[in-house]
Amino acid sequence: MVLPGMPRTGIGVDVHAFAPQGSDRELWLGGLLWPGETGLAGHSDADVACHAACDALFSAAGLGDLGVHFGTDNPELAGASGLTLLGEAARLVRGAGFEIGNVAVQVIGNRPRIGSRRPEAQDAMTTCTGAPVSLSGTTTDGLGLTGRGEGVAAIAIALVLPVN
Amino acid sequence: MVLPGMPRTGIGVDVHAFAPQGSDRELWLGGLLWPGETGLAGHSDADVACHAACDALFSAAGLGDLGVHFGTDNPELAGASGLTLLGEAARLVRGAGFEIGNVAVQVIGNRPRIGSRRPEAQDAMTTCTGAPVSLSGTTTDGLGLTGRGEGVAAIAIALVLPVN
Amino acid sequence: MVLPGMPRTGIGVDVHAFAPQGSDRELWLGGLLWPGETGLAGHSDADVACHAACDALFSAAGLGDLGVHFGTDNPELAGASGLTLLGEAARLVRGAGFEIGNVAVQVIGNRPRIGSRRPEAQDAMTTCTGAPVSLSGTTTDGLGLTGRGEGVAAIAIALVLPVN
Repeated sequence: MVLPGMPRTGIGVDVHAFAPQGSDRELWLGGLLWPGETGLAGHSDADVACHAACDALFSAAGLGDLGVHFGTDNPELAGASGLTLLGEAARLVRGAGFEIGNVAVQVIGNRPRIGSRRPEAQDAMTTCTGAPVSLSGTTTDGLGLTGRGEGVAAIAIALVLPVN
Repeated sequence: MVLPGMPRTGIGVDVHAFAPQGSDRELWLGGLLWPGETGLAGHSDADVACHAACDALFSAAGLGDLGVHFGTDNPELAGASGLTLLGEAARLVRGAGFEIGNVAVQVIGNRPRIGSRRPEAQDAMTTCTGAPVSLSGTTTDGLGLTGRGEGVAAIAIALVLPVN
Repeated sequence: MVLPGMPRTGIGVDVHAFAPQGSDRELWLGGLLWPGETGLAGHSDADVACHAACDALFSAAGLGDLGVHFGTDNPELAGASGLTLLGEAARLVRGAGFEIGNVAVQVIGNRPRIGSRRPEAQDAMTTCTGAPVSLSGTTTDGLGLTGRGEGVAAIAIALVLPVN
């Protein structure tokens, strides 16, 4: 039933709302701090790009999702950065017997403009996963939750390869 | 133009609205009945996870979509369960000359909590497709159609391999 | 860190709003003109299927996104059709050392009905990329930006293979 040598694919979506005006939340996205940008709300650092990438990796490996691995009953990861979680997700996927082919993440939202710091964010995410990570950005023409500026979404996919 | 031995990937999204309050619709998701949860509306069983998985398989194989195969001019499948449609989609994809590598589905919504019954749903979907199916869940921080509790979305991807 | 012989996957989403009533915008989708359908707004031809496919290809190859390649500082592509951009994206991805395995696009919206012209649109997109492109369609049960008829979304994934 399982094809030998065949990679597996996985998908992950994440959305966080912008923090209320006047909040002192910082914006973390793609493993980077974005000074001067409105922060996203959440218990974590709300890094939607890293969180979607984690879920794509877990999805490809059949290991569940962020909630399973980094839920509230995992106190040592409470408050961990998106990049820390992404590194840990990569470690868990390899520990379950997979190599990681690549991860691709698209950030959907009006702000920030990904293009301005894309290489830097890709490098950070690639280093922490040990596999190529691509990051891109788009907008939704003023429509939907991202177009109305209510929050930022990210969608990620991953390829992993079962080893031996 | 077609690379020999190269898998192909496909994608499918599905959304159903929750049934109106007071409706007696049951919730079917990931091939399982979820007692006590609000049902989703639709002519079918509204199993967004199975429907998205079908569309990802058809998309990967270049076979169109649910509307083509299970539309209203296909009376013998009227009212068929999501799991029945998923098994039929897998059969059609194999019949068109592809093996199925894997299917990955993420359910996006406030309810139900996928984690509580993930292994059971994965088993049901894996058995009926004859290939590994992973199921995960996420929420959208109160935003958008799923965050407002209007409905449930699912997004799925599949890898298939052309044979001979 | 990079697995030899392993394909890479990429993802792209695009959304355009319908043009205001009374506008004379034509609808371009999947590389086709759809006479009699309400057009989508935008500086370009607003072909969400082609734009999402471009972004999926760039994402798989780690080449950024539409904004990087076809942004406003690229005057010779100003006003270029979606199909022209898709052909150019395929050319750039091959020029960066990748072969294209396939691209799969799902259009999400109430109108137009993809099924009626799916083979024609697939042929147009396949010819211009030189790789198999699949096109499918779905709706969102009246919910969200597409369900309310505010616009049309497309989601695309691609597989590419690094060569030597």
